[in-house]
Amino acid sequence: MGTKAPEDVAIDGPGNRVVLGTDEKLPLDSGAALGPYTIAYQTYGALNADKSNAILITHALTGDQYVADPVHPVTGKEGWWTMLVGPGKPIDTNRFFVICSNVLGGCLGTTGPKDIDPETGKPYGLAFPVITIGDMVRAQKRLIEHLGIEQLFLVTGGSMGAMQVLEWAARYPEAVFAAAPIAGAARHSAQNIAFHEVGRQAIMADPDWHGGDYFNHGVIPSRGLSVARMAAHITYLSEAALHRKFGRRLQDRDQLAYGFDADFQVESYLRHQGSTFVDRFDANAYLYITRAMDYFDLAAEHDGDLSKAFAGTKTRFCIVSFSSDWLFPTSENREIVHALNAAAANVSFVEIDSDKGHDAFLLDEPEFFEVLSGFIKGCTQHRGIE
Amino acid sequence: MGTKAPEDVAIDGPGNRVVLGTDEKLPLDSGAALGPYTIAYQTYGALNADKSNAILITHALTGDQYVADPVHPVTGKEGWWTMLVGPGKPIDTNRFFVICSNVLGGCLGTTGPKDIDPETGKPYGLAFPVITIGDMVRAQKRLIEHLGIEQLFLVTGGSMGAMQVLEWAARYPEAVFAAAPIAGAARHSAQNIAFHEVGRQAIMADPDWHGGDYFNHGVIPSRGLSVARMAAHITYLSEAALHRKFGRRLQDRDQLAYGFDADFQVESYLRHQGSTFVDRFDANAYLYITRAMDYFDLAAEHDGDLSKAFAGTKTRFCIVSFSSDWLFPTSENREIVHALNAAAANVSFVEIDSDKGHDAFLLDEPEFFEVLSGFIKGCTQHRGIE
Repeated sequence: MGTKAPEDVAIDGPGNRVVLGTDEKLPLDSGAALGPYTIAYQTYGALNADKSNAILITHALTGDQYVADPVHPVTGKEGWWTMLVGPGKPIDTNRFFVICSNVLGGCLGTTGPKDIDPETGKPYGLAFPVITIGDMVRAQKRLIEHLGIEQLFLVTGGSMGAMQVLEWAARYPEAVFAAAPIAGAARHSAQNIAFHEVGRQAIMADPDWHGGDYFNHGVIPSRGLSVARMAAHITYLSEAALHRKFGRRLQDRDQLAYGFDADFQVESYLRHQGSTFVDRFDANAYLYITRAMDYFDLAAEHDGDLSKAFAGTKTRFCIVSFSSDWLFPTSENREIVHALNAAAANVSFVEIDSDKGHDAFLLDEPEFFEVLSGFIKGCTQHRGIE
Repeated sequence: MGTKAPEDVAIDGPGNRVVLGTDEKLPLDSGAALGPYTIAYQTYGALNADKSNAILITHALTGDQYVADPVHPVTGKEGWWTMLVGPGKPIDTNRFFVICSNVLGGCLGTTGPKDIDPETGKPYGLAFPVITIGDMVRAQKRLIEHLGIEQLFLVTGGSMGAMQVLEWAARYPEAVFAAAPIAGAARHSAQNIAFHEVGRQAIMADPDWHGGDYFNHGVIPSRGLSVARMAAHITYLSEAALHRKFGRRLQDRDQLAYGFDADFQVESYLRHQGSTFVDRFDANAYLYITRAMDYFDLAAEHDGDLSKAFAGTKTRFCIVSFSSDWLFPTSENREIVHALNAAAANVSFVEIDSDKGHDAFLLDEPEFFEVLSGFIKGCTQHRGIE
């Protein structure tokens, strides 16, 4: 049964918090409204005088706002994009003011299903409204307004982060000078919905989930969440990467054990991925955020024509995909490029040759770093940033 | 919690049963021995006078011996390969004597973990020895000897069935005139081990699993087994097939419901796959059979050189893969072909162009049927069968 008290998961790390939606609730795509709500965010670097050097980084499903922190307050590891973001890095915090906020529905400080519902005084659980990528972006927009920024120089992020980038560019084109959606898609595919559904069913099948009300039972559905993470993790890697990293090598033994312990290194690795995930992520948040990704279909919001989402846009786009990414494959990214071309947008597209699968966007991929650096350099010149 | 009594899963259908290993136990690759053990099998057609027209069909992970029955005794549906096996079909039961047996460790009549351990008088559960593809084939070999057949005209099967075909050809080359492994591999890949491990962890995470002892608690780990099946089922299909079948179409509704019910058809379909599977399959059998597949590595049994597995073979081989199969991709099948070529074996290889994924081997694929018909025709001429 669940062994961790909910507060182990609910750690609110250091950083900035702002309470929004007090006067005017945040309208949600479902028709519901949310407010007040908290946005937890990190910033790096300094905003310049004309507020033209702000970069918003949007995080992936299990990411968070600690994009470039040297020490993550929960995991103790480096932030998830320190290779890309920092002093002298492609996203240079000596030149840019970088903002990253935990998404709406998340579990690292921004309001989500683990937080207290002001109407009941108890954690929301499944009483939290179902949210969308559009809702996440609408909540972020208010944060950006709160910071006094009219136009972001760049919005960028990978995976679900790329979905938010596209939503930003479509919904607030005037507020986005440049947009770089990395390893993303303009809609979630049937296969991806299917994998998410497996993860949700694994969580909901855990008796410790208690219909989403586990906080009131002093447990967490750790086994279900762990299985969900294991299944998802396979989709983040390529077959080639798994083969290279593990192949059929055995774990701490010379021969098969003829049992159900982790004989193979890949089993041991997956179990570790599952068991460490439950220490840092809330199960209900996983349900809500996967659902938001499933619901994302930018063309559907524009009469089924993706190019209409970008009609008349002045935003400069850089689309990046990775050749071995089968979760958000190059073909899905090309569809975005085609739509942008149809809208006569300024767009560049690069497929990075990598065998690391979807996870490549988080890893050391020098060609990707060069592409993004070049794009940013060109955009600074056009924008007139020193 | 589990709602089904174990006997719902443990249905022994009609058909043939033979008890083997009474005098001499079956030696297992683990070093253990099993006996007596029951093999449940179906036959179709008649054995000819010189016993030269026998075809052994080997089944996949969740398959069974009812390969060509018009009505499956548990599911009520047709047998799993009726398009291929029957009077006038590519595997013509008017001409051939077709045998299909439930694998060792299975749950449709052949001895497996749900059966009574004669030493304790209780169901084996996890006391059942871990078995391998080699053990399955060794058990089948005794059945074939029991039927008085010295040489099989053909051994064929898909997926895990293909693993058994390869093992038959490697272990008993004189007993196999022709071999047609379909959509298989000579070893289980790291990615495939990973997906199996997710399924096993889902089962073991279900409190109703009771350490494998669920029969003594009057429950079955139906939720865990259902999640395992859902995850596996995605891997049987291609992204293209999922997109064609379901896309992002909604289930019985016009718009998103903003909840966690099955909004999308693909979710409803997966849930159905999971919930019906638990009615026909034993959770422990799923653990044991997936483990047998993980352990399969035919080259490792021959000093790491797959061609040695087939040294001097006279068996005629036909290898078939399907272009969109990402579970047992063409590349894995080509490795078998390369090894057979290195062993100077008689081998033909065809990649069938299909967008149906791994499941294509069970579906209406006319080109595949023609390839197999042509291979069988050539082999009958060489073997001198009327």
